[in-house]
Amino acid sequence: MSNLQVQLIKKPDAKYPRVNDVFQVKTASTPTASQLKDGEVLLENLYFSIDATMRVWISGAKTYVDPVLPGNTMFGQAVSRVLASKSQKFQKGDYVIGVVNWTLYQIISDAKLHLVKRGGDIDDLTGYSFLGPLGISGLTAYVGFEAIGKPKEGETVVISAAAGAVGEIAVQLAKTYYKCKVIGIAGGPDKCDYVKKQLGAHDCIDYKNENLSKRLRELTPNGIHVYFDNVGGEMLDEILMHITDHTRIILCGAIATYNQTGEPYKVKNYPRLIIKRAVMQGFLYFDHPELFKPGQATITQMLKQGQLKIRYDVQNGLEQAPNGLAKLLLGQNNGKVVVKAKADQPKL
Amino acid sequence: MSNLQVQLIKKPDAKYPRVNDVFQVKTASTPTASQLKDGEVLLENLYFSIDATMRVWISGAKTYVDPVLPGNTMFGQAVSRVLASKSQKFQKGDYVIGVVNWTLYQIISDAKLHLVKRGGDIDDLTGYSFLGPLGISGLTAYVGFEAIGKPKEGETVVISAAAGAVGEIAVQLAKTYYKCKVIGIAGGPDKCDYVKKQLGAHDCIDYKNENLSKRLRELTPNGIHVYFDNVGGEMLDEILMHITDHTRIILCGAIATYNQTGEPYKVKNYPRLIIKRAVMQGFLYFDHPELFKPGQATITQMLKQGQLKIRYDVQNGLEQAPNGLAKLLLGQNNGKVVVKAKADQPKL
Repeated sequence: MSNLQVQLIKKPDAKYPRVNDVFQVKTASTPTASQLKDGEVLLENLYFSIDATMRVWISGAKTYVDPVLPGNTMFGQAVSRVLASKSQKFQKGDYVIGVVNWTLYQIISDAKLHLVKRGGDIDDLTGYSFLGPLGISGLTAYVGFEAIGKPKEGETVVISAAAGAVGEIAVQLAKTYYKCKVIGIAGGPDKCDYVKKQLGAHDCIDYKNENLSKRLRELTPNGIHVYFDNVGGEMLDEILMHITDHTRIILCGAIATYNQTGEPYKVKNYPRLIIKRAVMQGFLYFDHPELFKPGQATITQMLKQGQLKIRYDVQNGLEQAPNGLAKLLLGQNNGKVVVKAKADQPKL
Repeated sequence: MSNLQVQLIKKPDAKYPRVNDVFQVKTASTPTASQLKDGEVLLENLYFSIDATMRVWISGAKTYVDPVLPGNTMFGQAVSRVLASKSQKFQKGDYVIGVVNWTLYQIISDAKLHLVKRGGDIDDLTGYSFLGPLGISGLTAYVGFEAIGKPKEGETVVISAAAGAVGEIAVQLAKTYYKCKVIGIAGGPDKCDYVKKQLGAHDCIDYKNENLSKRLRELTPNGIHVYFDNVGGEMLDEILMHITDHTRIILCGAIATYNQTGEPYKVKNYPRLIIKRAVMQGFLYFDHPELFKPGQATITQMLKQGQLKIRYDVQNGLEQAPNGLAKLLLGQNNGKVVVKAKADQPKL
């Protein structure tokens, strides 16, 4: 078994989402079961999640995780199979989720892992779902609404990056579960079509080709009650002009600011929060473990009833992971970006 | 009885806190009891509150109250005596509070008034207290903490405009009632002395003469848990660099932005809210009527036990109200600015 490893080789700079060239893919030695210490497992990493927040980690900024510095192996959430175990928690054949290195094989402490399936087989789609609707994307959408947005039936919910991994789940939760009027915002007619026709949003604003301010005035005549913000920056500033009394702004991401260096975008309309007695709150899903079970139950139910459409943008092979991240940061992805660690081989 | 009336004559423009010259004081006809319709009372307005938010009202901006336009009589909260009544709610001799015109006498619907004292006499200090600690200032401080800040014992609370009407109550509540470490921010050594020595803050930063960033680093080594923001703008931006996980920012006012025209101050550090999973929320005390009774009880208790020092900056005579507002906006006031409608006469 030969191992692969994706390493950060330099800090990305400038307004530079094309981060694929700050990584290198190397072959590496493969760890073996004989190296395991007590409490450790040997993993085969199967499916990786690609998330916009990785852009922040590789910038070297101090956040809620240690930054990835040049020379470090990149990491991220993944679904993995336990190949060998000296852990009390996991046995050979278990499927687990956790933040692991961008490698094919790895030895890791069991404290960093959660069980998702006990033995047996796993198909790709099930693997992806633990990274998407039943994982970070789904829980992020659910926790954002439950902990901050608190949408009430009939309210108007606006969601940016509505065709994105979190956005598409947020749109469908807001529409089907919370029974709200949902306006998506996305870049380009294809994404907007998807948000309207496939996800069922009331409407979707193509911010690249339409006048956001004018369209928001038309579509939210009573103001925006909940804004699920996956974008930040200038779009957030415009939204602030359309809030109403007691609007809740869920600060989920600021992808618009991740690629900037130097002066970040400055929000000029924040005093609207005072006039409208509105709230703007950042969150991370993992601060609300009490919401995981109800969130997964709600989403599982919707998946079973065909009420939740999820698209995956699959990168074929771990060596494609940097390209997947660049694609996401460039807004060129269609749905949740995941990596299948071992590439499907072309059938000849 | 001759009446006086303070009228807005033009919209203030530019970075212009000296708003005294956009008003004129006129004599006006005095309404009489014979003009009363059912549900109305004839008031003698005794004590007026001067509030920074008035700067917004007279700018013509659309907010939670109708703007004051040139030609309109200015209004504001006041304690008044009922001189005559055709109301079921109030009788002659009652003392009431409400938003009234800046006049000495006025006929008004009883729906706009609340009873503060049934008959008898009232001394000036009691009158002011209904406008201050037992009125807007006190309830604003209390509601801000209860609804948003939720300070826990031992946490670090930073309060801007700490020597101001709301700030001085917030400092004392945070220290005595919530048992927090309190850092004030105020302009100039005199105000800072007051905040430390009279109000009992742990320390006070003189933002006019000290390096705010450096002092915050020294004084809040574990970060700021609650920020009671009476100022907004650049100071808020600096605070955002010192927040910690789950910080609560109480957006009470943005006095720093009120006198600006053209481009408002832009907050560049708002993405810190995401990284720190922090909340920034605007509010108005009157959205939380459920907190009025506990708030007044808490504050009354503290007043009785001598735990709440309050300073009033009294303007002598209704005709001084515009000067009082300018003084407040220039930061030249000492404590809560109030107007005694009928000037004390010099004793000859």
